[in-house]
Amino acid sequence: MTELWLIGIGTGNPAQLTLEGRQALREAACVLLPRKGPGKDDLAHLRLAILADSGSAAEVIPFDMPLRDESLPYDERVARWHEAIAARWQAALEDAPEGPVALLVWGDPGLYDSTLRIAARLPGPPRLRVVPGITALQALTAAHATPFNTINGAVTVTTGRRLRDGGWPEGAESVAVMLDGACSFRSLPPEGLRIWWGAFLGMPEQILEHGALCEAGPRIVARRAEARARHGWIMDTYLLRREPV
Amino acid sequence: MTELWLIGIGTGNPAQLTLEGRQALREAACVLLPRKGPGKDDLAHLRLAILADSGSAAEVIPFDMPLRDESLPYDERVARWHEAIAARWQAALEDAPEGPVALLVWGDPGLYDSTLRIAARLPGPPRLRVVPGITALQALTAAHATPFNTINGAVTVTTGRRLRDGGWPEGAESVAVMLDGACSFRSLPPEGLRIWWGAFLGMPEQILEHGALCEAGPRIVARRAEARARHGWIMDTYLLRREPV
Repeated sequence: MTELWLIGIGTGNPAQLTLEGRQALREAACVLLPRKGPGKDDLAHLRLAILADSGSAAEVIPFDMPLRDESLPYDERVARWHEAIAARWQAALEDAPEGPVALLVWGDPGLYDSTLRIAARLPGPPRLRVVPGITALQALTAAHATPFNTINGAVTVTTGRRLRDGGWPEGAESVAVMLDGACSFRSLPPEGLRIWWGAFLGMPEQILEHGALCEAGPRIVARRAEARARHGWIMDTYLLRREPV
Repeated sequence: MTELWLIGIGTGNPAQLTLEGRQALREAACVLLPRKGPGKDDLAHLRLAILADSGSAAEVIPFDMPLRDESLPYDERVARWHEAIAARWQAALEDAPEGPVALLVWGDPGLYDSTLRIAARLPGPPRLRVVPGITALQALTAAHATPFNTINGAVTVTTGRRLRDGGWPEGAESVAVMLDGACSFRSLPPEGLRIWWGAFLGMPEQILEHGALCEAGPRIVARRAEARARHGWIMDTYLLRREPV
């Protein structure tokens, strides 16, 4: 592998692909496609559809995603898992055609995605190319037609885990939350906060809620649980903002 | 005006347009195009090129950007300016063809852009549609092939003005800075900070710098001044991160 292209493909709406992303898929020699095991491949068909729509003739090379060793402490668990994935990529590419290898990355390869860190573990290392893609946060604010920030305001982008562990970030006015499988906004005192929430953003299944956190919060918890049960999985994100007093 | 479409077009590389953005440009009846006055329209030709490339047949309707009244306090100055722009849109659309009106927005309409706030001042109001676009922050991290965040880390997205006025945001590990015409990173004690900087991101003129802030900072100040003098304008952004101790 001499060239590795990480291509952001958006949040599930194939039309979120950029012209640059489409061209890169067309020029790639092969595409590494993760297999996550039975019942977890809901999005695999969507990756293949995006690839087919792009007019790419790249060879699709599947690899099995390794499991994380949940007995290890967090940092070590993540490091070992990244190493294991890098090894799977190399093994899968043993007989691959020459030329650029592409990976389709949900959202943007820079935002809460491990692909860059996994790639850093490859021997060589290959030349990296990153093609930006539309993130869930952009799909969220677009769907709500609401700005990410207030005028000259700051936004803290953080994770559900940090929100649960650390509470409202010191001095923050707006907080965007990613990777939250647990409705961590429930750990905050809801007074004076508004929320803009979305799941399956950009997809036909998209659901949106917004309002004062005290009244919209319980509604979101209920809709999220219902949608998750129905689909078997869910991806969601949200923006919180202190209301002006 | 019954429908207003705000279409994110990326940072200056026409290939950053999404398939959704391209389709929206094709379906729009007309496009409002700002005229900023002689010597300030460097990017107008780029908007027209993106429009032409898209295959759009929309009527292009120019409007003159009003000036800001610099004698007013900041909040009032911005509010009055938004009102004035909304009035110009309406006047320009007097004889426009029926159908969706489109505005081409650099970056993403949700991130440090006033178009949503100006649209909120329109009578009616028209139905809004927002099409997300690639932001300068994404073009920056893609060009550097570096992640926006650390693993499970938070990122504060802020402005040059806030960084100058408030210093390093309390508790932040990574800080992304937008709208900074003044190299405001100079107001920070540089020890222990790294910077990833880029100007003209995604364009053929793109320039990048990164390194420890103490040594890369002065280099950036010099390259920025030189490039600004040569082009007559500059757009840049950067990411700062505390180095692990």
